Amino acid sequence: MPELTHLDEHGQARMVDVSGKAATRRVARAQAVVGMAPQTLSLIRDNALGKGDALAVARVAGILAAKRVDELIPLCHTLPLWDVDVEFTFGEDRLTITTTAVTVAPTGIEMEALTAATVAALTIYDMAKAVDKRIEIGEIHLLSKTGGKSGDFTWET
Amino acid sequence: MPELTHLDEHGQARMVDVSGKAATRRVARAQAVVGMAPQTLSLIRDNALGKGDALAVARVAGILAAKRVDELIPLCHTLPLWDVDVEFTFGEDRLTITTTAVTVAPTGIEMEALTAATVAALTIYDMAKAVDKRIEIGEIHLLSKTGGKSGDFTWET
Amino acid sequence: MPELTHLDEHGQARMVDVSGKAATRRVARAQAVVGMAPQTLSLIRDNALGKGDALAVARVAGILAAKRVDELIPLCHTLPLWDVDVEFTFGEDRLTITTTAVTVAPTGIEMEALTAATVAALTIYDMAKAVDKRIEIGEIHLLSKTGGKSGDFTWET
Amino acid sequence: MPELTHLDEHGQARMVDVSGKAATRRVARAQAVVGMAPQTLSLIRDNALGKGDALAVARVAGILAAKRVDELIPLCHTLPLWDVDVEFTFGEDRLTITTTAVTVAPTGIEMEALTAATVAALTIYDMAKAVDKRIEIGEIHLLSKTGGKSGDFTWET
Amino acid sequence: MPELTHLDEHGQARMVDVSGKAATRRVARAQAVVGMAPQTLSLIRDNALGKGDALAVARVAGILAAKRVDELIPLCHTLPLWDVDVEFTFGEDRLTITTTAVTVAPTGIEMEALTAATVAALTIYDMAKAVDKRIEIGEIHLLSKTGGKSGDFTWET
Amino acid sequence: MPELTHLDEHGQARMVDVSGKAATRRVARAQAVVGMAPQTLSLIRDNALGKGDALAVARVAGILAAKRVDELIPLCHTLPLWDVDVEFTFGEDRLTITTTAVTVAPTGIEMEALTAATVAALTIYDMAKAVDKRIEIGEIHLLSKTGGKSGDFTWET
Repeated sequence: MPELTHLDEHGQARMVDVSGKAATRRVARAQAVVGMAPQTLSLIRDNALGKGDALAVARVAGILAAKRVDELIPLCHTLPLWDVDVEFTFGEDRLTITTTAVTVAPTGIEMEALTAATVAALTIYDMAKAVDKRIEIGEIHLLSKTGGKSGDFTWET
Repeated sequence: MPELTHLDEHGQARMVDVSGKAATRRVARAQAVVGMAPQTLSLIRDNALGKGDALAVARVAGILAAKRVDELIPLCHTLPLWDVDVEFTFGEDRLTITTTAVTVAPTGIEMEALTAATVAALTIYDMAKAVDKRIEIGEIHLLSKTGGKSGDFTWET
Repeated sequence: MPELTHLDEHGQARMVDVSGKAATRRVARAQAVVGMAPQTLSLIRDNALGKGDALAVARVAGILAAKRVDELIPLCHTLPLWDVDVEFTFGEDRLTITTTAVTVAPTGIEMEALTAATVAALTIYDMAKAVDKRIEIGEIHLLSKTGGKSGDFTWET
Repeated sequence: MPELTHLDEHGQARMVDVSGKAATRRVARAQAVVGMAPQTLSLIRDNALGKGDALAVARVAGILAAKRVDELIPLCHTLPLWDVDVEFTFGEDRLTITTTAVTVAPTGIEMEALTAATVAALTIYDMAKAVDKRIEIGEIHLLSKTGGKSGDFTWET
Repeated sequence: MPELTHLDEHGQARMVDVSGKAATRRVARAQAVVGMAPQTLSLIRDNALGKGDALAVARVAGILAAKRVDELIPLCHTLPLWDVDVEFTFGEDRLTITTTAVTVAPTGIEMEALTAATVAALTIYDMAKAVDKRIEIGEIHLLSKTGGKSGDFTWET
Repeated sequence: MPELTHLDEHGQARMVDVSGKAATRRVARAQAVVGMAPQTLSLIRDNALGKGDALAVARVAGILAAKRVDELIPLCHTLPLWDVDVEFTFGEDRLTITTTAVTVAPTGIEMEALTAATVAALTIYDMAKAVDKRIEIGEIHLLSKTGGKSGDFTWET
């Protein structure tokens, strides 16, 4: 039966020793969705259609957060993040954030992709919260994952 | 019509000058939900029922993240965080994380409560991801907010 | 004769004890200039005139750096940064970055304004360095300073 | 025609994916100059000629900043900084700071050398600002660069 | 019977809510001792007697660490550190580090003084470890504490 | 005669250039001891025997600090920390913290093991300080070290 790799036989937190594993190229994609009232979303879309900074601020926040995952998530390793990308797609009452993270490392890069999407979402929330207190962030999950011994993965809906 | 307070008339990112506002006591509560397969959740619950560290690691991650919101969310102010609390409630296939953040400051503490909940959720994800790649984080929103000029707020479902 | 306040009578580094001073509103303005070939500057201007992120990335970098001055400059105090603003002005072969920082604190906010301008300039450099290795950053200085016991100051050219 | 590598075809900020590039040894040298009144500079020189800490504080600030470039400059990669050196040369009314940064990595180390010089300069500024409000930092540029596919570079005056 | 203030009735970690307490001036003094072979200590003393940087590097490390206690010690509050001082005293085979930290805050500043002493000690260790693997750090404790409701304290030997 | 590797011939602080050294697997073990009144220690032991968070909070603090050694100790390199482990052993009036750090790198990992032990000790101190002001941290030293050109080392008592 599977066990939680970050907890030892006494239930204590631990990192996973990856010093014996080979570094391979790994790519992870993730998403987060920010749901809000259509008129709130319009303010962001209008800013984006103009020359506004709203999406750029969120993009930068996501990129920077991906580089600090080891400080935020206690049992994560410090990985060299060779690329990270943050994209936005507008729906009627939802903004979807899609991220891609790339490393060459002995362990996976999922948490970097997920953290980039999540912090970008929190940044959108922060910019819009004065006009809409019912914003909700959700649907945060992995989209796909390649590289690594455990095999590739694609999220199926 | 309301406008995005963090964007000026040219659409450029800005902080909001709060130097003229009085510091008042403010409390914000927020939540995040981590959905996963019941057998994955059992591993975490068993760890928690034993003397395991799983929830403590996530709690500490949430508390630390709340103290670093100003580094993660670009346009947030640095507030003195006088208290932050992170609680967990088990459902059948979901773990609900509820946070409370307290400050005495000229501006609100919502982002601290939301970030604590979100980073605690990502930490749970990290510990369980090796056994379940279909974990999903969602329902991240404010629960309530008191103190401050814009009035109290309670999320109604 | 004036002395270096951050060095004691033995020449040793020290912070300056401000615990007995009253908190007052203080504003500091500063600038940095990024000099580069006109065609390099055109690439940035074109990006800015389109809906590009170049200036927003530099602006966010400057804002975030202002919030971390106490970590970067060893003898600086941790001040509550209640506002910080980063503006760009295009010349023919130079991009001028002007910043304003605001606090209510017992000591001045100059380093926050200067650091915001400087890190924004380094971020512009980073984005343009692949096309122009002769970029030069200069003219970094205070523009003005108000509040505080030592009196107001305006840079005169 | 050359393009800004950190901006994609839509003008959006991005890191540059270097996961396919080989790690090679790279060295970058940079400088910053702190201009100030001769009597201000004397205070620093006297401190340095005694056993004072002034230059050591600035040196340490520069070294530490070089190790955090990935947090300060949003689109920079996290590189292993295998060496960094910060030197000071006194002129009549100027203090020149020269830095050298070394890595073995798939991308260049210029920003680390530049950031070390710049933050060392800001630290000197901070220590002297109480006695001289007309300090100016300038002439921040690359001195040389070796290693890497784009060829070696030396700044010619 | 006294209880651990950072653990609630379920044994769970928590911060202590200090939002209802008044800010008062508080001073804490602490120490750490670095024990090493006399010839190792001589190398450091010789460097200090010359114009070397050894003690300045450790002093700066201690000062910077005091400003980041809230990031290092999970349940500590973020306090405004209005002054911190790091002093060194040479013995025959021991270097004593004494620190003083000052705040105006609703809670105490002991951890800042202790962390400054400890990180300064680790920095000395780091500089000397290549010549002496039997360095030992000890006697880390509070020396005194003033301000705050729980009364003043002086360590008696 | 041996010299301090982090200080050059002028006594100035420097990092050590390791860009020419091969990366090898290295393991370091270290300890710290927290001495306190038996009744204080009982409070921690009781918390640990129940389902309390006390040791988990200290463990997480130690793990996170090990990942930030390059920010805390000015002349340390940034190393990939592939594993770190923090264990606790109760004595009558002392809690011993033992750590193990693992890397594959061109230089050693001792400071990471020592810093993890030390910050875990400071975290225990923080949680117990309200009930016992005479806590003392000591006996911080390396236990063993393997890998690297300078040979293996074991602390002999």
